[in-house]
Amino acid sequence: MIKKLLIANRGEIAVRIIRACRELGVETVAVYSEADQEALHVQLADEAYCIGPTASKDSYLNTTNIISVAKLTGCDALHPGYGFLAENAGFAELCRDCNITFVGPTPEAITKMGIKDIARETMREAGVPIVPGSQGIINSIDEAIELAQKIEYPVIIKATAGGGGKGIRVARTEEELIKGINITQQEAATAFGNPGVYIEKYIEDFRHVEIQIMADNFGNVIHLGERDCSIQRRLQKLLEESPSPVIDSELRAEMGNAAVKAAKAVDYTGAGTIEFIYDYRSRKFYFMEMNTRIQVEHPVTELVTGTDLIKEQILVASGEKLTLTQEDVTLNGWAIECRINAENPEKKFMPSPGKIKMYLVPGGLGVRIDSAAYPGYTISPYYDSMIAKVITYGKTRDEAIARMKRALGEFVIEGIHTTIPFHLKLLNNEQFVSGEFNTKFLELNDVMKSE
Amino acid sequence: MIKKLLIANRGEIAVRIIRACRELGVETVAVYSEADQEALHVQLADEAYCIGPTASKDSYLNTTNIISVAKLTGCDALHPGYGFLAENAGFAELCRDCNITFVGPTPEAITKMGIKDIARETMREAGVPIVPGSQGIINSIDEAIELAQKIEYPVIIKATAGGGGKGIRVARTEEELIKGINITQQEAATAFGNPGVYIEKYIEDFRHVEIQIMADNFGNVIHLGERDCSIQRRLQKLLEESPSPVIDSELRAEMGNAAVKAAKAVDYTGAGTIEFIYDYRSRKFYFMEMNTRIQVEHPVTELVTGTDLIKEQILVASGEKLTLTQEDVTLNGWAIECRINAENPEKKFMPSPGKIKMYLVPGGLGVRIDSAAYPGYTISPYYDSMIAKVITYGKTRDEAIARMKRALGEFVIEGIHTTIPFHLKLLNNEQFVSGEFNTKFLELNDVMKSE
Repeated sequence: MIKKLLIANRGEIAVRIIRACRELGVETVAVYSEADQEALHVQLADEAYCIGPTASKDSYLNTTNIISVAKLTGCDALHPGYGFLAENAGFAELCRDCNITFVGPTPEAITKMGIKDIARETMREAGVPIVPGSQGIINSIDEAIELAQKIEYPVIIKATAGGGGKGIRVARTEEELIKGINITQQEAATAFGNPGVYIEKYIEDFRHVEIQIMADNFGNVIHLGERDCSIQRRLQKLLEESPSPVIDSELRAEMGNAAVKAAKAVDYTGAGTIEFIYDYRSRKFYFMEMNTRIQVEHPVTELVTGTDLIKEQILVASGEKLTLTQEDVTLNGWAIECRINAENPEKKFMPSPGKIKMYLVPGGLGVRIDSAAYPGYTISPYYDSMIAKVITYGKTRDEAIARMKRALGEFVIEGIHTTIPFHLKLLNNEQFVSGEFNTKFLELNDVMKSE
Repeated sequence: MIKKLLIANRGEIAVRIIRACRELGVETVAVYSEADQEALHVQLADEAYCIGPTASKDSYLNTTNIISVAKLTGCDALHPGYGFLAENAGFAELCRDCNITFVGPTPEAITKMGIKDIARETMREAGVPIVPGSQGIINSIDEAIELAQKIEYPVIIKATAGGGGKGIRVARTEEELIKGINITQQEAATAFGNPGVYIEKYIEDFRHVEIQIMADNFGNVIHLGERDCSIQRRLQKLLEESPSPVIDSELRAEMGNAAVKAAKAVDYTGAGTIEFIYDYRSRKFYFMEMNTRIQVEHPVTELVTGTDLIKEQILVASGEKLTLTQEDVTLNGWAIECRINAENPEKKFMPSPGKIKMYLVPGGLGVRIDSAAYPGYTISPYYDSMIAKVITYGKTRDEAIARMKRALGEFVIEGIHTTIPFHLKLLNNEQFVSGEFNTKFLELNDVMKSE
C-alpha cells in the first residue's frame, strides 16, 4: 500500500486528494508556488514545500523540483490531479524511472491516447465507434471529394498535428472542401511544420456524453456510467450531471462496453474517461477522446454510484484489485455539479480575482462542496478561475435541480464576482430543465438575459 | 399543498426546515428573539419577525406572538422543529383552532405519548414490548416482593408522579426493595402529593436504539430503520449512527414492526421516533418513550435511506401520501453524526459562548454539515450550545469513522471552545471503534484522558 503521496497540484483537486489520503491513512506532501503560500492544500497536507515562482512553468510544471521534493520527503507515490502534469507521458515516465508510483496510467497509455491520430486508429482497430472519415491523412483532393460524398457534408478538416481548436475547418460543399483543404494544409505546414490533414464527418448538433472507467492491474476494467457535459461555454464545461437525461440503460450499457473496450485497447489502468460525441438524432455515439486522468466532474459519478474514485485510484496504484465489479455498479438518483468560477457573468465571464471577504458555503442534505477557498483567501489571477464545485444529489433530476438552486441561493461569497448568478439563471431556464439541449445551448442562448 | 410556513424555532433546525421548504417551493417565515437578530435562519427565510426578548419563555415559547405572526403573514402551516413547542399538545391544539396546519402529530397523539404511565399502558395494550414490571401502582409490599422475584433483581422503583430523575430508586435485594418502596412512597407523598410507586426490571447495561417512523393521514405507517444513540453524556446524545453496530436485519424488522404498532396505537401522523432500551445480552428490546417530533439525529437516517424526512413531514402535513412504502426502505452504507457544541471538553464541557472569528466547515465526498453558524456569528449563552452537526456517510462503519476523523480534523472554528477534540478522541477510542459499548460508556471512560 502507498505510504506517502505527493500531490503535484493545487486548488480543490489537491484538497480532494488530501482528503482521500487522510481517510486511507496515507501521508501527504503538498507542493506550492510562491503565490500559493496561503493556499488551503498547503495547510491541510502533512507537509508542504515551495517548488518555485508563481508562473506554472516554474512551479507546478517544474518536474525537477517536484520529483526532488518527492524523493527528499520519502514519497513512494505521486498524484498529478488534473491539468498541469496529469497527461504528460514524459513526467509519468520520469516518476517510474525514479521509482515513484504515478497514480495514473502508464506513459504508454497516456501517449497512445494523447496523440489524436493514433488514438483514432487504435479505437478503430478495437471496434470502438469513431466519427466516419479518412483513414490517416488525405493524399489527394480527389480522394477527399470522394470520401466527403460518401460520409455526406458537412465535413470537418483537421490538421493531424493540430490541437486546441487550431487547424480545424468545416466544409459544407465541395467548393468549401477544396478551398479548406488547401488553406488548412498551408496553415498546418506553417504552424505545426506538418501539412497533413484528415477528414471527418462534422456532427453539428450533439451532446457531450462521457463514460467513467476504472481499471486495475489484474485486467479488470469497469465503467461507472455516464456524465452529460453538454453545458459548455467555449468548450469549457460549466455544469455536469449524471446520469444523462438522454441516455437509457440500453445505450448506457452500449457506451459503457465501448469505453471498456477503448481502455483495454491501451492496457489502461486507474481512472479514465472516454468522451463521446452523442448524436441524439440517430442515437449513435462516436469516440471523441480519452482523458487519461481524474476529471473535474468526477464527483457526480461518485454520488450516483456511491464510489470514492480517488480512493479507488490510490488503491489501484497500490496494486490492489478494484473494490467493485461491473455488477456492483448501479446508478441511483441524480447528481449535478456547478463549477463556480471567479468570473463576472455580466461582463462576458471576465476573470474576477481578488480577496474573498466573506465565504459561507451551503450545507444540508444532498449538498457536497469541493473547494479550496476560505474567508480571507485571495483568488490569484495566475491560475484556473474555479473556486468551488457545488454538487447536489437528489432522488430525481428535478430534486437535484431544486436542491442546487437552494444551495446556490445560500452560497455567500463576498469580495469577488462569481458565476453563481449565471448558474441560477441556467437552472431556471426552461430548456435546461426540460433536459433537451446540445453543446451549442449556451452559444445560442444568452442565459444571463433570460428571465 | 402548504404554501407558506412559519418556523417556530431557531438554529440549525430552523435552517434545515427553510432548506426543505425552498426545495419544495414553500414560502418561509422565520421568528426570532431579540438575541437572534443576526441569526442565520433570520437571513435565510423569506420573511422574519421578532417575537420577543431573549428569554425563551418570552420568545420561542411565546405562543401568542408566534400565532399572531403566523396569522398576520398568512401562513397556512407551522413547523415546530425540536425542543421549544414541538411536543406541546396545547400549542398543537392552538394551531388547529387557528386553522394553521401543525407539522406534526395531533394534540391527542402528543398527549398519549407525553405522559409516561399512559404511554406505558398504551404500549402494553398494543403489544409493544415494555420493561417487565407492575401493572399500575404497587398495592402492598408482598405484591412487590412477589413481582420482583418473578422479574428478577435488580428492579427500579419509580414514583408514578415523579420525573426528571426524581422519585427513582434501584433495589438489588429484597431488603433494599422493602426499604426502597417505603422511602420512595414517603418522598413521593411529600414531593408530588402522590405516594404511588410502580416497579420495573432495572436493565443496567443497555444500548439506546431508536426507530424512525413516518406516517401519513391515510393509515400508512412505515419505519426507516434504527439509530444507535448509546454515546451519551448525562443523558445528552453526543454521537449517533445508523445502522446500529448491534442490530441485524431480523432484529431491525422486529423493532421496526413494534415501532409501527406503537405509532398506530395512537393514530400517529408525521415523523416520530420510538426509543427502545436494547438489552443486548438477551437480545430483547423494550419501549422507552416516543419522541413525537423530528429529532436532532434525523440526518443519519436520511443518509442511509436516501429520504428527506423534513420534506416528507411537510408533504404529509399537506395531505399527501408517503412518497415511499416499507418495501422501498433499505439501509445502504453507514452514517454517523457528531454534535459539535460550544463547550470546553477539557473543562467538564463548560459552555463556551462567544464570537466565532474564523469558521470553515469541512467538505468533500460523504460529508454533510447542518449548522447555523458563520464567520463573525456570536454564539449566545441563552440557548442550546450545539453549533453544528457533522454527518459523514461511507460504505462501511469504518469508512464513515475515517471520514468523520478527516472532516473534524479540517473543521476550523476559532474564537470559542468546541467539542471537536472530544469527538476526535472518541473516534480513536478502541472500544468505540469495536462497536461494543452501552449507554454507560462515557460514564466509565474518560475519553479526554485516553491516548
